[in-house]
Amino acid sequence: MKRYALGLDFGTNTARALIVDCGDGREIGTNVADYPSGDQGVLLDPADANLARQHPGDYFAATVTAVRGALAQAKDAEPGFDPTQIVGIGVDTTGSSPLPLAADGEPLGCKPRFRERTAAQCWLWKDHTSYAEAAEITEKAKSQDRPYLDKCGGTYSSEWFWAKILHCARTDPESFEAAHSWTELQDLIPAYLTGNTKPETMPRGVCAAGHKAMYHPQWGGLPDESFLTSLDPRLADLRRRLYAEAVPADRLAGRLSDERARDLGLPSGTAVAVGAMDAHMGALGSGIKAGTLVKIMGTSTCDIMVGDERTPDIPGVCGIVPGSVIPGMLGIEAGQSAVGDLFNWCAQKLTTYGPTAHARLNEDASKLRPGQSGLLALDWNNGNRTILVDPLLSGLLVGQTLHTGVAEIYRALVEATAFGARRIIERIVEYGVPVREIVTGGGIAEKSPLTMQIYADVCNRPIRISRSSQTCALGAAICGAVAAGAHPSVPDAIVAMTGVKDTVYYPDPAAVAVYERLYRLYLDLHDAFGKTGRSPAIDHVMKDLIALRREAGRA
Amino acid sequence: MKRYALGLDFGTNTARALIVDCGDGREIGTNVADYPSGDQGVLLDPADANLARQHPGDYFAATVTAVRGALAQAKDAEPGFDPTQIVGIGVDTTGSSPLPLAADGEPLGCKPRFRERTAAQCWLWKDHTSYAEAAEITEKAKSQDRPYLDKCGGTYSSEWFWAKILHCARTDPESFEAAHSWTELQDLIPAYLTGNTKPETMPRGVCAAGHKAMYHPQWGGLPDESFLTSLDPRLADLRRRLYAEAVPADRLAGRLSDERARDLGLPSGTAVAVGAMDAHMGALGSGIKAGTLVKIMGTSTCDIMVGDERTPDIPGVCGIVPGSVIPGMLGIEAGQSAVGDLFNWCAQKLTTYGPTAHARLNEDASKLRPGQSGLLALDWNNGNRTILVDPLLSGLLVGQTLHTGVAEIYRALVEATAFGARRIIERIVEYGVPVREIVTGGGIAEKSPLTMQIYADVCNRPIRISRSSQTCALGAAICGAVAAGAHPSVPDAIVAMTGVKDTVYYPDPAAVAVYERLYRLYLDLHDAFGKTGRSPAIDHVMKDLIALRREAGRA
Repeated sequence: MKRYALGLDFGTNTARALIVDCGDGREIGTNVADYPSGDQGVLLDPADANLARQHPGDYFAATVTAVRGALAQAKDAEPGFDPTQIVGIGVDTTGSSPLPLAADGEPLGCKPRFRERTAAQCWLWKDHTSYAEAAEITEKAKSQDRPYLDKCGGTYSSEWFWAKILHCARTDPESFEAAHSWTELQDLIPAYLTGNTKPETMPRGVCAAGHKAMYHPQWGGLPDESFLTSLDPRLADLRRRLYAEAVPADRLAGRLSDERARDLGLPSGTAVAVGAMDAHMGALGSGIKAGTLVKIMGTSTCDIMVGDERTPDIPGVCGIVPGSVIPGMLGIEAGQSAVGDLFNWCAQKLTTYGPTAHARLNEDASKLRPGQSGLLALDWNNGNRTILVDPLLSGLLVGQTLHTGVAEIYRALVEATAFGARRIIERIVEYGVPVREIVTGGGIAEKSPLTMQIYADVCNRPIRISRSSQTCALGAAICGAVAAGAHPSVPDAIVAMTGVKDTVYYPDPAAVAVYERLYRLYLDLHDAFGKTGRSPAIDHVMKDLIALRREAGRA
Repeated sequence: MKRYALGLDFGTNTARALIVDCGDGREIGTNVADYPSGDQGVLLDPADANLARQHPGDYFAATVTAVRGALAQAKDAEPGFDPTQIVGIGVDTTGSSPLPLAADGEPLGCKPRFRERTAAQCWLWKDHTSYAEAAEITEKAKSQDRPYLDKCGGTYSSEWFWAKILHCARTDPESFEAAHSWTELQDLIPAYLTGNTKPETMPRGVCAAGHKAMYHPQWGGLPDESFLTSLDPRLADLRRRLYAEAVPADRLAGRLSDERARDLGLPSGTAVAVGAMDAHMGALGSGIKAGTLVKIMGTSTCDIMVGDERTPDIPGVCGIVPGSVIPGMLGIEAGQSAVGDLFNWCAQKLTTYGPTAHARLNEDASKLRPGQSGLLALDWNNGNRTILVDPLLSGLLVGQTLHTGVAEIYRALVEATAFGARRIIERIVEYGVPVREIVTGGGIAEKSPLTMQIYADVCNRPIRISRSSQTCALGAAICGAVAAGAHPSVPDAIVAMTGVKDTVYYPDPAAVAVYERLYRLYLDLHDAFGKTGRSPAIDHVMKDLIALRREAGRA
């Protein structure tokens, strides 16, 4: 008798349901549902470009649509499939995406009185309205010599939990006062599925808690009351109504309630796992294990690894959180603020090719040899998330002549993101975490062989591609399967349910040699323009690029 | 009885004749003639992008067409005009554009045996085949502690006289041996017009001699034989068949021969002035005097000033030559390798707007405030001619975000050329030559008010525009007038025959303040990437650009 798991993946613009065979990871049914409100699901404010919210009711509506669609597809595709074979459900969402809860556990934004209040909705990860509060948290943690930022690169972000809540308290005190508690979106969905919505007792996942809310067992969970009081006494009050413990995503959050079972067409009592954030689940779906770096490559890139208990704090790495990826291991999160977004910038702002831009630019850029463009770029158009952790940086392009074309710029931008990726790898390795394998997931990995080959050549390592094209939802399904007891542990489930494609991008020695020289130049620019305390001489950079261009022209 | 002068201007792609009233500079007839051979007049080699030659016979054919066309227009436009009223002819050409001469003074490239030999043709200024020979000349001048490069910025160029002749000797010895002598194009035309074509006695202009052939009275004219022998003994032989003296362009080169008078429809015996290079003549046509910086702005920019006998050598300035602009004064030449070419690069490579690109980009860029783009560029896509004198440099753009558009890049490139222009001005002023006025000529000055305003704001000086749109041909006509005795001196002729437009671009104090800060950042990048012996810290550059962008957004 086959057993299946259901993964629910809540992205920025859509929600996806994926039905997976617990035995071999085969994906038999999937469906994507739009969020009914806003612009592609996002509530915007024409007067404030930093604002990005979502209506919580949208998640519930999209869940029903996506699950029913996936069930229908599975029934078509798999003769004999029955929804009762679904034994476990896992959930991943964007994050940090916090939202206020009423005392009865219902999202405040669903209450008629607060339906139109943006502060009462879910504060989407990319909402940056709280940049001043984030800077204040960083400043206070440093001036009070608190350890809270040691695990997240040393700088608190305007994308994160406490900054957003503090901004809400200051700008819409009425909504803040009406909120009994707050939750991350990752924890709202399991509560909704199980009916265990009481804020004080609903399970909280360590993934968002650890990476976004400064939760860590080392200092007893959330930041202490005296610190929160120094920000705003109301935050200290709130702390008492939040949570004392956060747990990994293989734990049982509860059982599917009768009401939700009817809505979704699933068996009542199905195991529901604790939620986690999307990239971390994507790492599971990509087959993460000790020594494997999983890169989830989209508009930005999230790098995930796992380390053992000896792993030290790694300066400039976004987060190191026990159990945030694989229970019992340290989850390590790093990332680049713009990857696909950087390629989109080139395609949309520097060409008028329209929908075929990426295909044309990939084709033209593929004809160039390493070094031949004569260009070198920094990948900081959206700041630097790792390892400089500095949003106040910008893009840079050097080496252009009067003949430089846009395909050469495109290739230089791809190369720049590869150099940025290598810098992250080197920092992680430097702190004793070996990188033995790289597996990539996400749209770019499937669509751009050029990008994958450049990453292989720049990093001088083979690059593998995750077999699934829905790694986040697959990771969620893995947690659902483990929570249901279909596998004894996450690593066991990963072995059974994940894999990589046959195509592997191996480094080409000639390209590796050229990129080694280009990477040295990238590091000089990185250190000269970033706040690194170094000022390397860079008067050789243009000459070295010209020399590389000439050599490539003769090659 | 009115008197007129004829200016002949030999550009890269066309030749122009201009008939000017000696009394007030009024232009009564003009005509442009194509060169019959090659690609827009230029002989190219598909196998060697550095090669650019011209067939000397083309100059003679184009002269006839242009002069007859200008005469016809003058007769139409000016009732009572008669060609016998043309009292003097002046000539300007591109340079350094040397060509070999047969013993009878005819260009070697016109002899049937050498008609198809590229080495026997005129080596156009932008021919860069002799880059290795140029480097060798620089190296030998330095290692032998010769003063020859002191007047031309310290580096010999592949565009210049001796490098090209040495390359000819090495790559086509047959053509080299068949050449009795060599001449610059500027001296070929007066020889052709007067019939004074004997290589040993034909007049040679100091403009090309001084700026391109290392001629200077300080060391007795051309470089001495021992130096030339160290390059190639055949150059020392050639030196004896070149010239001992080079003279300013107001001198009489001779009188129009009967044969040429018949060809052109002009009176026999008309005074013909010694030739000079185009930008220098453009300075005359723009009204140069002590304290006036004339900027001839086209694809590249040539900056011309005149200094008195106390003017020292100015490091990094292309050339300081007695009498090359105004007789009795030092001619000072500086320049930027890419100005219009840089704007063309943006318009053609980063947009698909077609023929309207510049108009659209100018319009969009005009809507931005100083600092608002957040961008800063270096204007080195074609190397740096002044003051770094280094072709092995390249473009740079910094400050781009994911929202940066091409109009912002366009404006940043305009600003970059203005910063480069200011750096040149500061170097000249630093060495005791006051800049009291800036007059611009050339197509950009007429077509782009945005560019002129940015130059005024960046330099914090008013920018005036030359009244004539044919400043080079007008300058040549001025020399023709002086050689004919219509004016006692070049400065007298300039006062009578030139002027500026009514429109003056005055600096705007608010923009000046922003550009002062941007210029400091430009200098940091200039010094960090150029070979200046300095490594300024530049980790503040991206942050300062972001701060400037935010301030401009609030302004």
